[in-house]
Amino acid sequence: MHPILQELSNIGIIPVIRIDNPSDTLPMINALNKGGINCAEITFRSEHAKQAISDISKTYPEILVGAGTVLTIQQAQEAIEAGAKFIISPGLNEEVVKWCIDHDVLIIPGISTASEIEKAMTLGLDTVKFFPAESSGGAKRIKDLSAPYTKMHFIPTGGINQNNMHDYLSLPCVDAIGGSFMLPQELIDSKNWDGIEAKAKEAITSLLNYRLIHIGINTNSKDDASKYATLLSTCFGFKLYEKPKSTFAGEGFELLNAPGPGDHGHIAIYTPYPERAIYQLAKLGINVLEDTITRNKKTSKINFAYLDLDIAGFKFHLINPDVKM
Amino acid sequence: MHPILQELSNIGIIPVIRIDNPSDTLPMINALNKGGINCAEITFRSEHAKQAISDISKTYPEILVGAGTVLTIQQAQEAIEAGAKFIISPGLNEEVVKWCIDHDVLIIPGISTASEIEKAMTLGLDTVKFFPAESSGGAKRIKDLSAPYTKMHFIPTGGINQNNMHDYLSLPCVDAIGGSFMLPQELIDSKNWDGIEAKAKEAITSLLNYRLIHIGINTNSKDDASKYATLLSTCFGFKLYEKPKSTFAGEGFELLNAPGPGDHGHIAIYTPYPERAIYQLAKLGINVLEDTITRNKKTSKINFAYLDLDIAGFKFHLINPDVKM
Amino acid sequence: MHPILQELSNIGIIPVIRIDNPSDTLPMINALNKGGINCAEITFRSEHAKQAISDISKTYPEILVGAGTVLTIQQAQEAIEAGAKFIISPGLNEEVVKWCIDHDVLIIPGISTASEIEKAMTLGLDTVKFFPAESSGGAKRIKDLSAPYTKMHFIPTGGINQNNMHDYLSLPCVDAIGGSFMLPQELIDSKNWDGIEAKAKEAITSLLNYRLIHIGINTNSKDDASKYATLLSTCFGFKLYEKPKSTFAGEGFELLNAPGPGDHGHIAIYTPYPERAIYQLAKLGINVLEDTITRNKKTSKINFAYLDLDIAGFKFHLINPDVKM
Repeated sequence: MHPILQELSNIGIIPVIRIDNPSDTLPMINALNKGGINCAEITFRSEHAKQAISDISKTYPEILVGAGTVLTIQQAQEAIEAGAKFIISPGLNEEVVKWCIDHDVLIIPGISTASEIEKAMTLGLDTVKFFPAESSGGAKRIKDLSAPYTKMHFIPTGGINQNNMHDYLSLPCVDAIGGSFMLPQELIDSKNWDGIEAKAKEAITSLLNYRLIHIGINTNSKDDASKYATLLSTCFGFKLYEKPKSTFAGEGFELLNAPGPGDHGHIAIYTPYPERAIYQLAKLGINVLEDTITRNKKTSKINFAYLDLDIAGFKFHLINPDVKM
Repeated sequence: MHPILQELSNIGIIPVIRIDNPSDTLPMINALNKGGINCAEITFRSEHAKQAISDISKTYPEILVGAGTVLTIQQAQEAIEAGAKFIISPGLNEEVVKWCIDHDVLIIPGISTASEIEKAMTLGLDTVKFFPAESSGGAKRIKDLSAPYTKMHFIPTGGINQNNMHDYLSLPCVDAIGGSFMLPQELIDSKNWDGIEAKAKEAITSLLNYRLIHIGINTNSKDDASKYATLLSTCFGFKLYEKPKSTFAGEGFELLNAPGPGDHGHIAIYTPYPERAIYQLAKLGINVLEDTITRNKKTSKINFAYLDLDIAGFKFHLINPDVKM
Repeated sequence: MHPILQELSNIGIIPVIRIDNPSDTLPMINALNKGGINCAEITFRSEHAKQAISDISKTYPEILVGAGTVLTIQQAQEAIEAGAKFIISPGLNEEVVKWCIDHDVLIIPGISTASEIEKAMTLGLDTVKFFPAESSGGAKRIKDLSAPYTKMHFIPTGGINQNNMHDYLSLPCVDAIGGSFMLPQELIDSKNWDGIEAKAKEAITSLLNYRLIHIGINTNSKDDASKYATLLSTCFGFKLYEKPKSTFAGEGFELLNAPGPGDHGHIAIYTPYPERAIYQLAKLGINVLEDTITRNKKTSKINFAYLDLDIAGFKFHLINPDVKM
């Protein structure tokens, strides 16, 4: 995957921004970044797009800034000159796509039919925008369209918000979603950048959807593990699941047959998207333990990974819905 | 805007007509025209299309007749020779579009995706058909598609009738809708042209959706205006709204601070589409007073205009839902 | 109509098959065939597609095997070399279509908009796939799209199963539907070929939807016919319908004015698709009596036909919903 697409995929949410007031650009980008969203699509629907891209790429060179609603080669050219790292367009304009490919520019054109996907493939692309997402049949349609085009990746945009984003992001072929839901107009109008930061954080929190899913308790033998699990089952009615290295009492308690990671045990944190969690945790200096990673065989997505994190004698691992009881 | 598109937009409804019986053409067009619809799309789904267009353009040269379901250059050529003033096709056929542009012919090809809009733009078009409208996502999808293509105009057709036409026509990017709902087959079969005229009139009435929204009463001072408004409020519980030149009691009574238009006052007639109302009223010899017109700042659509009409000492103005209390 | 399309239309259901295990190919095809489905689309989503097509065309040359998810000229070439009788692709790739036409290969590319249909027509095609069917607006959208393109035929695929297939197949412009609903993964995994055969039979049974709709009783005069019909009406409250050659009592009893086919009378079997019934019955050696066929005037589809079948003194005819009381 193109390294920029890889990073957009790790972020998962691309804010679609129309700059009405040039002085808003930098504080808005700063707020989004502090909230966990270090990318942006600046749309050419506003005349200030070029200036905004230039401002961002100079002041925050680490931000992944791209240009949106690019309808002509001239706009693509202006965007790239201003420092845009990628180009997004609502539809597929062959001339614009070819110009981008010829100039080694990452272009993500919009499509909404199988024939348009074939056109994108013929031009050499492996990632497209799906636009307008909700009114073109939504996640269901992407799922159907992706069936024959197994290598095509999608960035749906249009009508997506915190409530329906998981419908899209849970499809392995969806790299990220675009939207403006974390940028309510009233917060922009009142230059409430703390409010925007909170909205961005809320979007990422909602994306990662962390929750405690089980606690792992170290014991010294399979017998002990089994005994404690049975006791938990007796007390609380939890169902028992025998596993190769442990016994579960319900989904919440894993009794290990031998001391595992952590002096006191471990804690499993659920997230639908371990890659995205790892990306955000790395910003906090918390790294994944590479050799503990396991992946879904079909999609190659991470479904389990220990973190380099120990709190009060507990080690932490991430786990996603792939891993079933 | 192209003058023909401007006029189609003023009419708002384009009857889509398939001529099964050539002798029906002229009485049907006459009935539609008398009912207020002075345009027609004659589709090439019938072999009589060319003849019908020719008959109409000779007998009723003032009628805006166009050709529909034009799938080939040959059909476009025949249509133009017969007197068609515009060409409509269900999909975008590049060859047909280019031929029309080269021959200075107004062409409105069908699209239903963003990429197809880009193709139309690349070819130099600013107005497209959206087909089949209802089963392609309806007005919601046009709204989404128009967001990045702010200059594109749409004429949706397919599944539109009196009940849902306002969903489309209330979008500023929609110039007109196409449909056959004012042409029930049984009325055509029985050559009930009065019935067709009534249906056309019903469609235009439903389009303009006129209703009395307030009466303006002249008083001699702000104090008087306020006093009468308060009395109305006391009697009927109407909410008071103080405005620069008047006080409203509810939405129905405007008490002017000084004598305004009309010896006895004025009457405000609501319509969603003042331009279309002005167009139809002009047919009755009632003209707008140009210097009273105000417009929506964003869409440039008229939202208020006095008419050159005085009934029983009352002047009349049009007002649309833009103007809020 | 192309003879292969004619036969696919007669079968009505095209199984879409992804071969995961090459040794499954022949028993699966055999099971489908025994269940009444003697065609298959082998998709290039699996690397075994070419081999599977080759195996089928060598072992069962009478099976109508085609290649699906063909995205490149190379795949089309491989498919044809292996013995594929037709090529299906999810979208319209102009290069692939042109190659097929140049090499006299039946190609059915996917479309989902009017403009894509125009492209197909421009390339000379009269039959397209509609994909992904359910999430592109379903049968309603095909109906709308087919209105201006009266000569275009459709093979919808994607989300179609026994429950919704009649929505599509009842449209005269739909030749056949594609789907995998008769191939549940668990039956394939367990190599339960009898189960697959049963599923195929169930699909065809559900397609043909046979049921007894009336019994025809021979009498010697209009008076007798009328008398018996009246008696049935008196006894059971059946409504009487007088016809030129008989009187019906309800929809279930036809009293003929003179002895008709069959020593004891005749039996009418309802099916929505007489052509498809005739095709399947011919496999059992039961033939239609050509000179008894009547057709819908608009669609030219058969709506009535006697069979060369006599059971216990009763002759049988097929009848479809066209023929109303």
